[in-house]
Amino acid sequence: MTSVRELLRVGPAVDLKDIDPSSTPGLPGRKITGKDSKSWAREQLALIGGQLTVKQEMLYAGAKAGDNRRLLLVLQAMDCGGKDGTVKKVAGAMNPLGLHIVSFGPPTEEEREHDFLWRIRRALPPTGLVGVFNRSQYEDVLIARVESLVPETAWRARYGQINGFERELADNGFALVKVMLHISYDEQRERLLERLTDPTKHWKYDPADVDARARWADYQGAYSDALSQCSTDHAPWYVVPANRKWYRDWAVANLVLEAFDEMRLSYPEADFDLDAERRRLEADRAPAMAP
Amino acid sequence: MTSVRELLRVGPAVDLKDIDPSSTPGLPGRKITGKDSKSWAREQLALIGGQLTVKQEMLYAGAKAGDNRRLLLVLQAMDCGGKDGTVKKVAGAMNPLGLHIVSFGPPTEEEREHDFLWRIRRALPPTGLVGVFNRSQYEDVLIARVESLVPETAWRARYGQINGFERELADNGFALVKVMLHISYDEQRERLLERLTDPTKHWKYDPADVDARARWADYQGAYSDALSQCSTDHAPWYVVPANRKWYRDWAVANLVLEAFDEMRLSYPEADFDLDAERRRLEADRAPAMAP
Repeated sequence: MTSVRELLRVGPAVDLKDIDPSSTPGLPGRKITGKDSKSWAREQLALIGGQLTVKQEMLYAGAKAGDNRRLLLVLQAMDCGGKDGTVKKVAGAMNPLGLHIVSFGPPTEEEREHDFLWRIRRALPPTGLVGVFNRSQYEDVLIARVESLVPETAWRARYGQINGFERELADNGFALVKVMLHISYDEQRERLLERLTDPTKHWKYDPADVDARARWADYQGAYSDALSQCSTDHAPWYVVPANRKWYRDWAVANLVLEAFDEMRLSYPEADFDLDAERRRLEADRAPAMAP
Repeated sequence: MTSVRELLRVGPAVDLKDIDPSSTPGLPGRKITGKDSKSWAREQLALIGGQLTVKQEMLYAGAKAGDNRRLLLVLQAMDCGGKDGTVKKVAGAMNPLGLHIVSFGPPTEEEREHDFLWRIRRALPPTGLVGVFNRSQYEDVLIARVESLVPETAWRARYGQINGFERELADNGFALVKVMLHISYDEQRERLLERLTDPTKHWKYDPADVDARARWADYQGAYSDALSQCSTDHAPWYVVPANRKWYRDWAVANLVLEAFDEMRLSYPEADFDLDAERRRLEADRAPAMAP
C-alpha cells in the first residue's frame, strides 16, 4: 500500500484550492475492503490505535534507558476543522500517561511580552512522550497575519524562524508530524449549524467564528503560504482532507504510525541480571508482615 | 445497587490488614450478571467510560461558562500496585483533551528547596479538567517516613497540613477522589516476576523494588496511618482491593462516576441568540473565495 505520508505531503508551492476537502487519498475501495469505506476506516482506526499504543510504550521505555527521542503531532485547521475531534480519536487511542497535549489560545499578557516561540518551547513534550499541539507556532503566521496583529515584516520573518526552530527540534530527537485539517467553506457552515441545533454543543459555538468566515479567502491564502514556506525535509507538512471525519481520523493515525515506524523503536534491553533477580524473588515467598 | 463509595470508604481507624486485597466489594454475582465477574466488569467499564466522557465534557463546557469546578483523582499504591494500569484504563476511557495527568517522582533539587506542597500546588488541574495524580502529597508521609527522609516531627505535622490543603481545595471547587490500590505481598511478587519473564516489561523492573519489599510492613503501617489521619468528610480515602485488575478498574471508574454524579453537572445554556445566529448562517451560503 502506498504510504499515506507520500500521498498527503505538500511541496514548496501548495495552494489549498487544488486539494479537495472531500477526497480520501490512500483509502482502498470496496473491492479490496469488502465493505463501505466509513466502516472499514473506523475498524482500521481501532487496529492502528493498538499499534500506536505499543510504539508509544517503546518510546516511553526508551527514554528511561537514555533515548532522547519524542514525537510531536502539530494540528492546525480553520474553526470547526476537527482539531479537537482528531485529538479525541487519535490521541485517545493511546495511553494517556504517555501523552503531552497542549492547546494554544490567544497569547496571555505574559506570553506577549516574549518572542512568539517562547510559549511554544515551554510546551514541548519531555523525552519519551508523544506531544500534541492543538494549534501552534503557525498561529503567528495565520491569525497574526490576517488580523494584522503584527506588521508584515514581522510575520514574513517568522517563516524562517519557524524553519530554524524545527530544524533544531529535529536535530534533538523530535519526529515532527505537522497536519493541516482541510475542510470546505460549506462544511464549516454545516458544522456551525450543527452546534446551534444540538444543545450539548451550544458551548462550542462562538459567534466570532461566523465573523471570521468573511476572511475565509485570506485565511486560506495565509495557510497556503505557511505550508509552502515551512514544508521542509526535516518537518514536512501534510494536508488531510477533513470533510469526512472517518477519513480524517484514519489518515492522521496513519501519519503518526508511519512516523513511528521510521523511528525504528524497540524495547530496551534489561540493564540488570535477570537470573539473579528471579532467584531473589523466588526465595522471597514469606510475607514479611509485622509481628 | 449500593454505592461503591460507601463500600470502599475508610474511616478514622483503618488498618490495611483488615482489608482483603482479593475481595470484590459491590460486584454483583453471576446470578445477577449472567456471566463471569471478569467479563461483566470489563463490559461495564466500557459503558462507564462513555458516561465519564459525557460528564467530563460537561465539566469542561461549564468552565468556559465560568464554573470553577474540577475533579482530582489521587492514586497511591505500593510498587506494582497498578497505578499506571488504572490511569490507562480509567483515564484512558475519557477524552485526553480534558485530562491533566501528573506523575510525581522523587523531588527534584528545585522542589526540595520548597515546602512539600509546593510542587503539588503547581500540578493542580485548571478549572474544567479532570486531574489525575500518579502518586501525590502522600508520598511525603509514606516514603519520607519509612525511609527517614525527614524527622518524625516533620512528617507527623504533615497530616494536618495535608488536611488543611485539601479543605482549601474542596472549598475552591475541587471534587477529590483519593484511592489507595491495595495489593498483597504475594501479588507484588507475582507482578515483579511477570516483569522479568516478559521482555516487553523489563524496562518496568527496578531491582530497588525488591529491596523495598523488606520494608513492606513499615509501608503498610504508614499507609494505614495516612488513611486514618486524612480520610475526611471533604476528602475521604477509598481503599480498592487491587489484586484483580478487572475489579480495580471497575471500582475506580465507579468512584469517579459517583463523584461526578454528586457534582450534578449539566451543559451550560447558550449565551447568544440562537435564532439570530441560525439566520446569519443560513444566509451565508456563497463561498467567499478570493477572486
